[in-house]
Amino acid sequence: MIKIYGKNACKASILNNAPIKEIYVDGKDNKLISFLNDHNQKYQIKTKDELNKMFGINNQGIGLIRENYKNYDISYFLTAEENKRVLILDGISDPQNLGAIIRSVDAFGFKGIILGNNRSVPITEVVAHVSTGAIEYVPICYVNSLNNAIKILKDNGYWIISAEAFGKDKLEDISKERNICLVIGSEGFGISKTILKASDYIVSIDMKGHVNSLNASVSAGILLEKLK
Amino acid sequence: MIKIYGKNACKASILNNAPIKEIYVDGKDNKLISFLNDHNQKYQIKTKDELNKMFGINNQGIGLIRENYKNYDISYFLTAEENKRVLILDGISDPQNLGAIIRSVDAFGFKGIILGNNRSVPITEVVAHVSTGAIEYVPICYVNSLNNAIKILKDNGYWIISAEAFGKDKLEDISKERNICLVIGSEGFGISKTILKASDYIVSIDMKGHVNSLNASVSAGILLEKLK
Repeated sequence: MIKIYGKNACKASILNNAPIKEIYVDGKDNKLISFLNDHNQKYQIKTKDELNKMFGINNQGIGLIRENYKNYDISYFLTAEENKRVLILDGISDPQNLGAIIRSVDAFGFKGIILGNNRSVPITEVVAHVSTGAIEYVPICYVNSLNNAIKILKDNGYWIISAEAFGKDKLEDISKERNICLVIGSEGFGISKTILKASDYIVSIDMKGHVNSLNASVSAGILLEKLK
Repeated sequence: MIKIYGKNACKASILNNAPIKEIYVDGKDNKLISFLNDHNQKYQIKTKDELNKMFGINNQGIGLIRENYKNYDISYFLTAEENKRVLILDGISDPQNLGAIIRSVDAFGFKGIILGNNRSVPITEVVAHVSTGAIEYVPICYVNSLNNAIKILKDNGYWIISAEAFGKDKLEDISKERNICLVIGSEGFGISKTILKASDYIVSIDMKGHVNSLNASVSAGILLEKLK
């Protein structure tokens, strides 16, 4: 089970017919109550204080409990469809970043995200909340071996594009008429050597500042947008 | 005074000759101690526990206390230089987002950021930490009236480009050979009507997902990169 809170996140769960167990709503929020009635939802009325205790102070008057998100199988990404896009996150530890990346993946039409079980944050309440509902629409696939996942994707016609500060390839030079798997590394340690070796291209974002690195969700957003 | 912690943030303060009062370092971190000695810094040795108490658990073995960041005057953005870039944030409440945006502003060569005093988060320890040192290089200008700031920028040859989901102008159609002021709205409420009215262009980021909005620091990053 996972707790979802906040207007956008809860509305997305309801609109997407998620497997919801319980919904709790602020008895004074008539708009939210109308929304729930309009969508034939059963709910329990709570006070602001009760909601704050159950869901923390960022609940915006609504919280729900739903089954955990389904873990997709990698076969989901191997359809016959052309110009497929998938994102691999090689270790991401900050739930805020993962939530923001899920929003961008939804916005730019990628099929979903593949993550390694051992080095990545799981889908927590914070991740779901920060995704403002996008988690309902973005298939997530945790795997034991990202190297193996990349081999399967390559065998099925994906080109692997890794993003690293030292990357010399230009995104503009890569044909978009392909199945593309974009790989983004962890906040502290970047992309593993084995994955870099298996990559068809290593690209970087052209920067001219003093610090020369971006927040992980910002780099991801910039590259996802360019590959959309 | 403001506390700075974390390797990148503290190193940036030192390398940029920031007005530092005290530096505290983990006595067991020889690399950091060598760095401080190499840069002729005075410091006090502390244990990990002491640093955690003083700077929180994300200190990475180093913390310092420096004078507050200078508030730049808007005249700083009115130099004779051509193709100037400045970012206006019309209300940003999340320190994580502001820190990430400061990193992007540095990376993409914008001159600095103008914010309204009344609706924006100030430069806190979290903002400085998340900026991973970029705050040392990005001039920040808090003003009482953003409307007035925009008038001054327009009178001095800036074009005002606001970013809103309903924007119909295309960034690609706007000449880059200009002084450009990009305006990003607040996480919840977007850009004020007065500023939208004063804008030369209103652009949006083309999205095709279900949720159709991005994290504020991600939208900012995408647009800053395109205008760099």
